[in-house]
Amino acid sequence: MASSEIEALTQALARLPGLGPRSARRAVLHLMKKRETALDPLLRALSAVSERLATCHVCGNVDTTDPCAICADPRRDGRALCVVEEVADLWALDRARLFPGRFHVLGGRLSALEGVRPEDLRIDALVARVADGGVDEVVLAMNATLEGQTTAHYIAERLERFPVRLTQLAHGLPVGGELDYLDEGTLAQALRARRPVA
Amino acid sequence: MASSEIEALTQALARLPGLGPRSARRAVLHLMKKRETALDPLLRALSAVSERLATCHVCGNVDTTDPCAICADPRRDGRALCVVEEVADLWALDRARLFPGRFHVLGGRLSALEGVRPEDLRIDALVARVADGGVDEVVLAMNATLEGQTTAHYIAERLERFPVRLTQLAHGLPVGGELDYLDEGTLAQALRARRPVA
Repeated sequence: MASSEIEALTQALARLPGLGPRSARRAVLHLMKKRETALDPLLRALSAVSERLATCHVCGNVDTTDPCAICADPRRDGRALCVVEEVADLWALDRARLFPGRFHVLGGRLSALEGVRPEDLRIDALVARVADGGVDEVVLAMNATLEGQTTAHYIAERLERFPVRLTQLAHGLPVGGELDYLDEGTLAQALRARRPVA
Repeated sequence: MASSEIEALTQALARLPGLGPRSARRAVLHLMKKRETALDPLLRALSAVSERLATCHVCGNVDTTDPCAICADPRRDGRALCVVEEVADLWALDRARLFPGRFHVLGGRLSALEGVRPEDLRIDALVARVADGGVDEVVLAMNATLEGQTTAHYIAERLERFPVRLTQLAHGLPVGGELDYLDEGTLAQALRARRPVA
């Protein structure tokens, strides 16, 4: 029934993370029924992003400017650098507005299984940024996975000859986490890193 | 952190049914990282639909042509007319490809609570279509809700002076439905409409 244009739009939406064929159809219907309030604003926003889309040559973030808004922001503390695997991690950390420094996106994690080697990631660019000076602390904010921690370990080795403080995110109970439901690895980490009651 | 263009795109996506602020951000990130395979195809599909968007003056469907593809299809049996509340219902029924006839979208349901009266729906247009002749059967495919059934009842009264067969969708157990989990209303309908074992 659906015309080829509607079919193409449904398929394009269905490929977005979080949407499947069924919800994509619902979304298309919504867009077509609400032209002024849904379809046209989405079209305008998408055009604007498409026109200006850029990858930041400094940190690897995606934004509508290069350097990105974070790298260009003079209020950001350039002495602290937070290294993350993916742009999504940068966005997640930045959303919380807890880190006042700058970021560095690796573009993945080392993986023997997937054949990802150091030269496939933006590790040389990170070392160069640190070598340029002005950085006091590098936060290794990799995922708490085997590959993430392997990547953090490798980067720590590459950076140990520089006079920077290397830190990593704390591991332990997530907020709201119930002991009963947590895996043994997390419990072990939380117990090992236990602190005196303030 | 996000530029105003990214923020606008996130908000436009977050207003789609099935996406919230969190999944919209993930979708935006996906679009920005996959320009050729995600962002550009979506932009093209959205532009194409936006340019051709039309409401069918015959049946009330939304499509990229007027009359819509269903009303324009000569293979469709114009003698059977399926009346539905919303365009979404038309799409759901048509997706199943079980109904070979044409459709009529009311654009809602009668509701004293929400102040929806007969003249707010496309009921006169339906009566006119039936009065024009050529229709043998009208399937009242309203939702199995109080308001849906009230609407079906009202339409049945409006159409009783025409020589058409009025039918409605069967009520009963949904496929895969377990008696234990079904409401009493459905069970009562299924029992009342019980059939001899074939």
